[in-house]
Amino acid sequence: MAVIGLIAGEGSFPILVAEQLKKQGYDLKIAAIENHADKKIEEYASAFIWAHIGQLKKSIDFFKRENVKELILAGRVRHASVFSIKPDIKAVKLIASLKDKKAATMLGALCDLFEKEGLKILSSVEPLENMLFRDKVYTRRKPSKKEIKDIALASSAARALSSRDIGQTAVVKDGVVVALEAMEGTDMCILRAGELAGAGTVVVKVARPKQDTRFDVPIIGLRTVKKLVRSGAAVLCAEAGSSLFFEQEESVRLADENGICIIGVRS
Amino acid sequence: MAVIGLIAGEGSFPILVAEQLKKQGYDLKIAAIENHADKKIEEYASAFIWAHIGQLKKSIDFFKRENVKELILAGRVRHASVFSIKPDIKAVKLIASLKDKKAATMLGALCDLFEKEGLKILSSVEPLENMLFRDKVYTRRKPSKKEIKDIALASSAARALSSRDIGQTAVVKDGVVVALEAMEGTDMCILRAGELAGAGTVVVKVARPKQDTRFDVPIIGLRTVKKLVRSGAAVLCAEAGSSLFFEQEESVRLADENGICIIGVRS
Repeated sequence: MAVIGLIAGEGSFPILVAEQLKKQGYDLKIAAIENHADKKIEEYASAFIWAHIGQLKKSIDFFKRENVKELILAGRVRHASVFSIKPDIKAVKLIASLKDKKAATMLGALCDLFEKEGLKILSSVEPLENMLFRDKVYTRRKPSKKEIKDIALASSAARALSSRDIGQTAVVKDGVVVALEAMEGTDMCILRAGELAGAGTVVVKVARPKQDTRFDVPIIGLRTVKKLVRSGAAVLCAEAGSSLFFEQEESVRLADENGICIIGVRS
Repeated sequence: MAVIGLIAGEGSFPILVAEQLKKQGYDLKIAAIENHADKKIEEYASAFIWAHIGQLKKSIDFFKRENVKELILAGRVRHASVFSIKPDIKAVKLIASLKDKKAATMLGALCDLFEKEGLKILSSVEPLENMLFRDKVYTRRKPSKKEIKDIALASSAARALSSRDIGQTAVVKDGVVVALEAMEGTDMCILRAGELAGAGTVVVKVARPKQDTRFDVPIIGLRTVKKLVRSGAAVLCAEAGSSLFFEQEESVRLADENGICIIGVRS
């Protein structure tokens, strides 16, 4: 059985990735990030450790010991935790080598470090191709003319963010940009927009222009849709072909129950 | 004594404007926006009304009755309240005529409406020229080299927002954009950044490229500095020549007590 490593961050993404990989017959060795990963992830592993976000040596040693040659990164690392990191020596060296602390820079350097240690980082999209967002309306409700205008405005604002490696999400209502995502993440951005502007917001999440699919894939799942419901959002639009849509059935059902429109658009 | 009208929104700005106008010998007629203006504002007026944000006719009638020909708008209107407005007929017509609901569009149309009624809107900067931000470091502490880099990054992000009429503030720490302002306003943006990234953030507030000084002047004052203290911010940078700096003495004192650097930079 082929061995594959998985570094598991926050959310249901790592669990869904692990599930897919198991289905495809892989033997999983999982390093889960402390205070981030779901405890359930352990069930999918034939070998498992918890590692603090700064314990790079511990993770590398674990994967080497378990004969891992190929590795997948899955799940969000709270960007804020970057500032409270307790780095080991490898992490200190990594951080010292960075030109800035943007997510893409840090994760790119992390991938390079792993690859130097003989651990190849695979695209997390590859085993999940069937989950890529498609160019269609998923829900019963289609976007209204007014909402299509708001989608265009939010897309343009989100693209301005993503091209600068700041965030990926913009929320618009009635032609006004209500909230832009920076470090707080998509969920908090959606909730803030609802608090500021009330129901009826349009949420657009885009990929980066130069997306590194080893770590940088926008993901929509049930957790996102729950946030949409809580904030009274009307529309969620994601980029077809470059975003992943998890838990599609439950997500669409919940969206339909709440009159929310979920749409994939090719850029 | 020359009569001048004042529409008073949120914060200490209207009070400071009223103070300056009184000092210059004007007879003030004030319409204060309900749930926005400070009650103290009444003290400065020889005639005074409270008006809901949607009661345009009430305000116009008041100013006409009081022989007002020239008018100043001062103080923030919470953008979020735009969605809960209860418009009178004049306000309904105004809203129906808008091409979008951006702040600049709405306030521009409001100014046009007032001017059509014979009420000229003056620049709020004019009576306050001595309070314009200057190109200098106000505090004992100068920005460090690292902070100067963060100022440059935040300025560029804030300019991207302001040029699209989204917001005016960006907060950066260690080369990462932590928070961007949209509808929530500068204060909430500063506090969120502190919660996400901890102490040491760099806050930059810029003017719009085509600033309409009748309503669109970025303002820094003691309230802003208190938010900086609460969020542990390290630097506040504003645009010299186009932002106003109120309550300078107390603001600088409070900043100095907390090791904060306040700097004005000409763009």
